[in-house]
Amino acid sequence: MMVKSTTYTVLPDGTITLPRGFKAAGLHAGIKKKRKDVGLLVSEVPAAAAGVFTLNTVRAACVTQNERQLKSNPHLQAIVVNSGNANACTGRQGDADALEMRACTAELLNLPVESVAIASTGVIGMPMPMAALKQGITSASESLSEQGGLDFAEAILTTDTCTKTVAVQVEIDSKLVTLFGVAKGSGMIHPNMATMLAFVATDANIDPSALQKLLGKTTDRTYNCITVDGDTSTNDMVLVMANGMADNKTLTEDHPEWDSFAEAFHFASEQLAKEIARDGEGATKLVEVLVKGAVSELSATGIAKSIVGSSLVKTAVFGADANWGRILAAVGYSGVPFDPERVDIWLGSVQVAADGMGLAFDEEAAKSQLLTDTVTITVDLKLGDAGATAYGCDLTYDYVRINASYRT
Amino acid sequence: MMVKSTTYTVLPDGTITLPRGFKAAGLHAGIKKKRKDVGLLVSEVPAAAAGVFTLNTVRAACVTQNERQLKSNPHLQAIVVNSGNANACTGRQGDADALEMRACTAELLNLPVESVAIASTGVIGMPMPMAALKQGITSASESLSEQGGLDFAEAILTTDTCTKTVAVQVEIDSKLVTLFGVAKGSGMIHPNMATMLAFVATDANIDPSALQKLLGKTTDRTYNCITVDGDTSTNDMVLVMANGMADNKTLTEDHPEWDSFAEAFHFASEQLAKEIARDGEGATKLVEVLVKGAVSELSATGIAKSIVGSSLVKTAVFGADANWGRILAAVGYSGVPFDPERVDIWLGSVQVAADGMGLAFDEEAAKSQLLTDTVTITVDLKLGDAGATAYGCDLTYDYVRINASYRT
Repeated sequence: MMVKSTTYTVLPDGTITLPRGFKAAGLHAGIKKKRKDVGLLVSEVPAAAAGVFTLNTVRAACVTQNERQLKSNPHLQAIVVNSGNANACTGRQGDADALEMRACTAELLNLPVESVAIASTGVIGMPMPMAALKQGITSASESLSEQGGLDFAEAILTTDTCTKTVAVQVEIDSKLVTLFGVAKGSGMIHPNMATMLAFVATDANIDPSALQKLLGKTTDRTYNCITVDGDTSTNDMVLVMANGMADNKTLTEDHPEWDSFAEAFHFASEQLAKEIARDGEGATKLVEVLVKGAVSELSATGIAKSIVGSSLVKTAVFGADANWGRILAAVGYSGVPFDPERVDIWLGSVQVAADGMGLAFDEEAAKSQLLTDTVTITVDLKLGDAGATAYGCDLTYDYVRINASYRT
Repeated sequence: MMVKSTTYTVLPDGTITLPRGFKAAGLHAGIKKKRKDVGLLVSEVPAAAAGVFTLNTVRAACVTQNERQLKSNPHLQAIVVNSGNANACTGRQGDADALEMRACTAELLNLPVESVAIASTGVIGMPMPMAALKQGITSASESLSEQGGLDFAEAILTTDTCTKTVAVQVEIDSKLVTLFGVAKGSGMIHPNMATMLAFVATDANIDPSALQKLLGKTTDRTYNCITVDGDTSTNDMVLVMANGMADNKTLTEDHPEWDSFAEAFHFASEQLAKEIARDGEGATKLVEVLVKGAVSELSATGIAKSIVGSSLVKTAVFGADANWGRILAAVGYSGVPFDPERVDIWLGSVQVAADGMGLAFDEEAAKSQLLTDTVTITVDLKLGDAGATAYGCDLTYDYVRINASYRT
């Protein structure tokens, strides 16, 4: 897929183009049985940085340490990530292990510890195997390269079945700015936070506070609009590093090409969010729920999330059963005021309900809309002009299989 | 099971003892393919009545008509119920059909239409097959009997695998007062409302406003503390009829034996709620989550519901995987303030976490606690003296199977 918008260019799928001045690595260190489990992403020079973090009250050491660090100085030069162990609910030892993970990385890269962010994902409540982790970080620091983006993308996965990356280029001040984004998702994914793990590296020159503001706003409309299973994780975060090596003038909201950058950033975030939803644990389909005709974006988002999170809607999509009553029921318990007798509902291009009542639709045509890779549900409230989209996946036998024995 | 509390006696399982002055019937009218689908419960004399109804904005005609009726006059003499068709999202025709269902019943029983309540459960958005329904009501009115409680209990089921009934007796003013309760549940069960269908008949003499208050309070602690799948239905209701034929002095909160009646009523409601949770769609186990050490009952309830609603906790219980980290994560996203570093967690009698961290527990012993019919999860916040219990079930392959093709 090669998409050329008026403002930005999306690089073809699978193109792992790191922005100028970034190197990455990923390898198997022995935290997981077989698959890669340690990833490292490093900038040549200090990068403006921004982050959003889980709103779960139970937060892993990596979340609290990164958040504290970015508050005191919004710059980073390296992100080290491990999968297989979340280092959450591990108390003081977990906090000390997280600090050691950062210190070890800093020493190997000859950086101050303050410039290293960390992320962990995997089983909750088990002590981190520090020897394996440190050996892995050492090896990763030795194998950093400009071609290492895919290895990094692989190293952060847990039950994900595929890597999730995006590369976008945009011209700012006639300079080519590149954004590379990578994410992992799968389970414990629910939109009430900065969700799952996502990392964006860019060579844009951008003001850190403008970057943080952009990240927050974009997260609400992308990562926070997906759900896999309604469970909010203890380790979720999105981190961005912008090292300025594209040499554009510093981006702030007053920059004449701010919108171009913001659009490219939004596209990259949305793309990763959708990939996470599509690869939800056990999922066979991406479900896009578009709510329109709402009185505000907030109310449209609330309804879209309620539908995409409904176990009954998700199982009906899995079984390709055009059970639109469940969609209207989920609108009804969303907590958002609306008029049930005005609601229109479409499955793909087939309208199944008008003014809150069923139409005599063609059952086979409706079913065929639910047998596609990407299922679109559209709900028109006919109350106003606002809209929003939420992303999720179907609920399948495999979700149950994967999670009935995740730990054992 | 014969339980004798200090105040009330629970009649053995399967004893369908209707209170004095009540008759019931249930039969197959052709709305569903094979199973019974029309039920009728009638009191000889007008009964004080109370009801609680779904908080879903999308509400079936039966819900709105009953609510309006009870507000204008809290007395009823008959409840007619059909399963197989929810008569929800059916617009004006649905409202007219619901009224005709009441009128037909009233005429057959020679009652004013105002004294008949109705309930429908089943598929949403399909027109009610009125001919079959009216024929069924006619037959039911002809077969009413004091032994008809079990037939009625069968007639209200949808994907339920068993009937849910309870019979309790309590002495008030030296008179024997009997409560008979019956419920259906299975799917679209979530505790933010008066949930699913439940009906209680009693021969107690009780003031209607005291009855309504008791029902509201009891519902919050019983029916509203269960979840099967997080989906709030359009047709949920609990209705109570108290016909006074036990001849006790009118019960109000000032009656010296009010507490005895309230305890018996609470027990009956809790019993039905637990039976609904245990028979959740696809469920193999009842899950009881007890939260203690909370600063208030409200916060304990919030946390207990968050845990019992977690898809990840539910699948781990299904797979008997002692994945306590998911329990703590669900406490963390409950929205209730607490101190993660003080939380203790037990699976049955095995403590698996202390002060928010994992213990080196015996994996086999913990697993065995998850292989029982009723799985108990206890969370101690160690912050105060309040507690609450929520009920749910495991999430299984069969939940997905049942709901992937419910309608087709």
